Amino acid sequence: MNQHPKLDDPLVLFMPSGKRGRFPVGTPILDAARQLGVYVESVCGGRATCGRCQVEIQQGHFAKHKIVSAPDHVSPVGPKEARYAEKRTLPEGRRLSCSATIQGDLVVDVPQDTVINAQVVRKDADDKVIERRPALNLCYVEVEEPDMHKPLGDLDRLKAALMREWGYGRLEADAHLLPVVQSILREGEWAVTAAIHQDGEDDVPRIVALWPGLKNEAYGLACDIGSTTIAMHLVSLLSGRVAASAGASNPQIRFGEDLMSRVSYVMMNPEGRDAMTRAVREAVSKLVDKVCADGQAERADVLDAVFVANPIMHHLFLGIDPTELGGAPFALAVSGAVKARADDLALDLNPGARLYLLPCIAGHVGADAAAVTLSEGPHRQDEMMLIVDVGTNAEIVLGNRSRVVAASSPTGPAFEGAEISAGQRAAPGAIERVRIDPETLEPRFRVIGTEPWSHEPGFAEALGPTGVTGICGSGIIEVIAEMYLAGIISEDGVIDGALAARNPRVVAAGRTFSYVLSEAAPRLTITQNDVRAIQLAKAALYAGIRLLMEKQGVTAVDTIRFAGAFGSFIDPKYAMVLGLIPDCELDKVSAIGNAAGTGARMALLNRDYRREIEQTVRRIEKIETALESRFQEHFVNAMALPNKVDPFPRLAARVPLPARRTPATADAADGAPRRRSRAERAARRNRS
Amino acid sequence: MNQHPKLDDPLVLFMPSGKRGRFPVGTPILDAARQLGVYVESVCGGRATCGRCQVEIQQGHFAKHKIVSAPDHVSPVGPKEARYAEKRTLPEGRRLSCSATIQGDLVVDVPQDTVINAQVVRKDADDKVIERRPALNLCYVEVEEPDMHKPLGDLDRLKAALMREWGYGRLEADAHLLPVVQSILREGEWAVTAAIHQDGEDDVPRIVALWPGLKNEAYGLACDIGSTTIAMHLVSLLSGRVAASAGASNPQIRFGEDLMSRVSYVMMNPEGRDAMTRAVREAVSKLVDKVCADGQAERADVLDAVFVANPIMHHLFLGIDPTELGGAPFALAVSGAVKARADDLALDLNPGARLYLLPCIAGHVGADAAAVTLSEGPHRQDEMMLIVDVGTNAEIVLGNRSRVVAASSPTGPAFEGAEISAGQRAAPGAIERVRIDPETLEPRFRVIGTEPWSHEPGFAEALGPTGVTGICGSGIIEVIAEMYLAGIISEDGVIDGALAARNPRVVAAGRTFSYVLSEAAPRLTITQNDVRAIQLAKAALYAGIRLLMEKQGVTAVDTIRFAGAFGSFIDPKYAMVLGLIPDCELDKVSAIGNAAGTGARMALLNRDYRREIEQTVRRIEKIETALESRFQEHFVNAMALPNKVDPFPRLAARVPLPARRTPATADAADGAPRRRSRAERAARRNRS
Repeated sequence: MNQHPKLDDPLVLFMPSGKRGRFPVGTPILDAARQLGVYVESVCGGRATCGRCQVEIQQGHFAKHKIVSAPDHVSPVGPKEARYAEKRTLPEGRRLSCSATIQGDLVVDVPQDTVINAQVVRKDADDKVIERRPALNLCYVEVEEPDMHKPLGDLDRLKAALMREWGYGRLEADAHLLPVVQSILREGEWAVTAAIHQDGEDDVPRIVALWPGLKNEAYGLACDIGSTTIAMHLVSLLSGRVAASAGASNPQIRFGEDLMSRVSYVMMNPEGRDAMTRAVREAVSKLVDKVCADGQAERADVLDAVFVANPIMHHLFLGIDPTELGGAPFALAVSGAVKARADDLALDLNPGARLYLLPCIAGHVGADAAAVTLSEGPHRQDEMMLIVDVGTNAEIVLGNRSRVVAASSPTGPAFEGAEISAGQRAAPGAIERVRIDPETLEPRFRVIGTEPWSHEPGFAEALGPTGVTGICGSGIIEVIAEMYLAGIISEDGVIDGALAARNPRVVAAGRTFSYVLSEAAPRLTITQNDVRAIQLAKAALYAGIRLLMEKQGVTAVDTIRFAGAFGSFIDPKYAMVLGLIPDCELDKVSAIGNAAGTGARMALLNRDYRREIEQTVRRIEKIETALESRFQEHFVNAMALPNKVDPFPRLAARVPLPARRTPATADAADGAPRRRSRAERAARRNRS
Repeated sequence: MNQHPKLDDPLVLFMPSGKRGRFPVGTPILDAARQLGVYVESVCGGRATCGRCQVEIQQGHFAKHKIVSAPDHVSPVGPKEARYAEKRTLPEGRRLSCSATIQGDLVVDVPQDTVINAQVVRKDADDKVIERRPALNLCYVEVEEPDMHKPLGDLDRLKAALMREWGYGRLEADAHLLPVVQSILREGEWAVTAAIHQDGEDDVPRIVALWPGLKNEAYGLACDIGSTTIAMHLVSLLSGRVAASAGASNPQIRFGEDLMSRVSYVMMNPEGRDAMTRAVREAVSKLVDKVCADGQAERADVLDAVFVANPIMHHLFLGIDPTELGGAPFALAVSGAVKARADDLALDLNPGARLYLLPCIAGHVGADAAAVTLSEGPHRQDEMMLIVDVGTNAEIVLGNRSRVVAASSPTGPAFEGAEISAGQRAAPGAIERVRIDPETLEPRFRVIGTEPWSHEPGFAEALGPTGVTGICGSGIIEVIAEMYLAGIISEDGVIDGALAARNPRVVAAGRTFSYVLSEAAPRLTITQNDVRAIQLAKAALYAGIRLLMEKQGVTAVDTIRFAGAFGSFIDPKYAMVLGLIPDCELDKVSAIGNAAGTGARMALLNRDYRREIEQTVRRIEKIETALESRFQEHFVNAMALPNKVDPFPRLAARVPLPARRTPATADAADGAPRRRSRAERAARRNRS
């Protein structure tokens, strides 16, 4: 194993990691991978029975790496490998790396099994390739039979065998295994598979589960507990494959739609915290049932689980009173990563299953934001990356390799369709896309669940009897942006009543005007108040972003990532027209879907990612918007469309923006003092 | 702290450890102790409030150590110390080592609070001084209040404070603390006491319990689960003081008197294992109630517990099926030390309480024998020490610093009074001491609970109406030894019927004779079968000892320690006359009482002892008597009194032993073949 490599030993390059080294002829490829720290799964310990250590030998001349990888540079298929291939089938080109030995220079591909799931629910596993180094490993081992001359206990002989064959220096065992170790060893005729959990490099590895004979699969859960939706993936810890995904409404909605009303519920009801903890744990448990049924797995096969959540759901899931998060100083009970046993949280998985919760960044920026950060990795690259996750609050992360800052901005629920007269959640019947002809001021729109646009043939038929029911978050952004681009609203957000003369869709409503988007019952109008609500929300978001840009000392960002459901459906162009986000190349703005779920999967499949996000969160500078006087200033400036002070040259190059008034003029034009006090009230309301 | 000491710095000697070092003038004595690794408890972290760090300054010229310890070599009592002394009283001569600083050469005594408990129950805490280094420590700490600028969680700030003030490099916390950390910190106004558990040097220290403000006491349990008796001590983890001790019958007696019948019960009854596990855990739990009530402690104040037991009770307590221990190869399910949480075994202590079970030595030599070994420490010294613990089996340990061997010998229950016609357990009414006049053959005896001997005035009155009820283990040893010394039985164990002519106490009973020990109802006689039963038991014990002596290559031992109840009451002289134990200076034979309980207390109060016994048990060579052909040979030879082959010169110097026949003659004299086959049958019965 520790032979010193010679210069004329064959050179082996592992892909995709790019790790390389020289090894003596005859070294099994698996041993070479281990010595280089390339993770290749193996359960049976080189017996060519588990089939987990498959690799693909690449052939050809790899000029960049100066390697010629030829078919005869690997040993021919031997009898053990042939027997495996016969019994279990080995895909063309694949070899068992425990049996195939190095005979010359090689390029070896370690397959990363990933599956792109259909986008059935919004929060779905994406197809990111995650290098595996799980906290939980299966180890098959043959144990010495009891011997009167060496009265070592069954468990002790098992430990000795695991240490000898799998290189563990020290091992502990979970207490729940004590009563069963005897019968499992005998049932397996002294051959067993142990699940060994080791989270930190310095932690003592622990035997947490045990099966007779060869056990060839173990699962983990990656779960994002959102305020409205809980999403869960069942993931093979051995291949990284997503075996099943499912989502469910968070049952806590019955205690209050938004997080702060749930905190109020806890404050008002002595039993409230318990009830809410039970509710979320039961919902999680039901999802476990669902993903296990879909993925054809048993609960007892689930051995590790990673959870992410916003701070309030994080606390409620852990059984912690979230009341402190409802007011200054917004003190988290625990901010660091949480490690526990599944049964500590009454979660019925394998009795030895472990849990890991990512760290929270701050009282308003939770483990979900940490997971998004882990997924997108601003700290891993040089470009200045802006990550925005819009919910009732917007979590904002901005940074690059050298520095990352984060904040939460009190946007309120307008972007989710609340506080909008015709607003509704994204669901069939809701308007999601809008275009307004700047000449005629006539609208066209598209409805969720209906293929044709409103002006296209077959729209009414496709729509069905329920008709258009409201307008969702992305529709609101588009209609207000299009109203602005068509000149129906000014950059100060005032609906221009004079246009009533050009099109009867502009109608008076008291002292202000509205725009009728849909005539059919129910009649949907965009009111002056709707525009104001969106202005407040976008001003809060933009002010938070500007504050972080100021902290970073930048006036532009290189990339923008929109996380979460809102971000998945919004058109970046309209977000920029309204001034939700700063100017940026449009093709550098992307939606990243359930990036929190991706971050959870990364932490599940590779414990190095746990250390990475723990260290990153410690490094992230947390900005509390409520304490920053500049936030109010940015907020007021950002009420205008796109906003009062910042130029949008890259947007303007693509979209013909209306001519701007000078800031001074704008300030004088439209009752700034009144607007300012509303903004302040809103900011205070969202924070207390 | 790490200042390099100079040669003219004051010299400080700590007693009783004898550790010494030079420290700059002004160093607090507590710091000096820490630097030398001298354990001085401190909860408050040098605030002079907990009073745990008391030491005594010795005064005078300590010629052997070349130190003059003068009153002005320690700083005068300062204001903080004076305030403590005023509020809590400080015993004369005691100083708080956190406040008292070094001003010159000093001899400092670290008081080892130990209490000699009245011998109320047999298994009682003895007064051994145990240097303390518990796995569980209390740490008082003041935590930073939450701050919006630094959004670290409550638990995270607590950890940071503990790391800063108590020098921990890394800390984890038990999951059960997550829901309560918030309210405890606020109740204590950001001052709390944490219980930190760290068993192994390499283990990550864990916060396992938390109290608001200063918590000044924590307890541990040291418990010996014997086959017939469970003994428990409640021990202060801070002072080492035994706060309470209690014993109870093992309720498993209802499943079978001896261990093998309990194993049979499990084999016969599918629910038997569960029922027996529940029974022993409930009995332990009741004892916890009792010691807590007696010691005025709460269950929630108990944070650590050490258990020792024979292999079968060890397995049943852990919920392990003991059936495997009932037959070859006598395979233990677990032999190494077991670490668990109290709630893993459904034991209701503090929710963070930990358990530690000492390792078992072999399938017949349990954690109780390991605890006795730890207590007596043959591996710590040079003399060849023999430890004998007689129960239904006899556990035998023999060794010194360079090598330790151990075995179990199937003595059967004769020494406990079973299989003896007039035998009974040690209890009031049982004969425990016997003398026989070699001239008249008349006996004298003493009865448990009765002060005068049978021939002394007032005996009948003191005895009361129940009278003499039977004869206990130590009484049986004495009566048979005295019968031998008086010539009533020969060295082959035959009761000499010819003596019926000299004293009517020798009476015929079928083909053999008996000796009437007590005429009063019930009439107590020693029958030929009784003598044979003791001969079988003592032969088994002696054969085991001889086997181990052979393994060690010695023909004599330096010291003999008798553990357990039997050993506490037996007179070593008679044990040697009967040939239970090899020849030895009588004053080097001692009873050590409940040494298993002492070993448990040592492991409770000092985690270094846990490592010591784990290493020692790994090193001990385990001898399985059933596999050793020489055992049968020794067994047959040991049937004679004292035995057939070994001389007892040191015993003979004190006790006039009857003249011996030569081995050859003895063999021919008394039907050896018949005896041999009985011996073999007995050996087999006791082992299957």
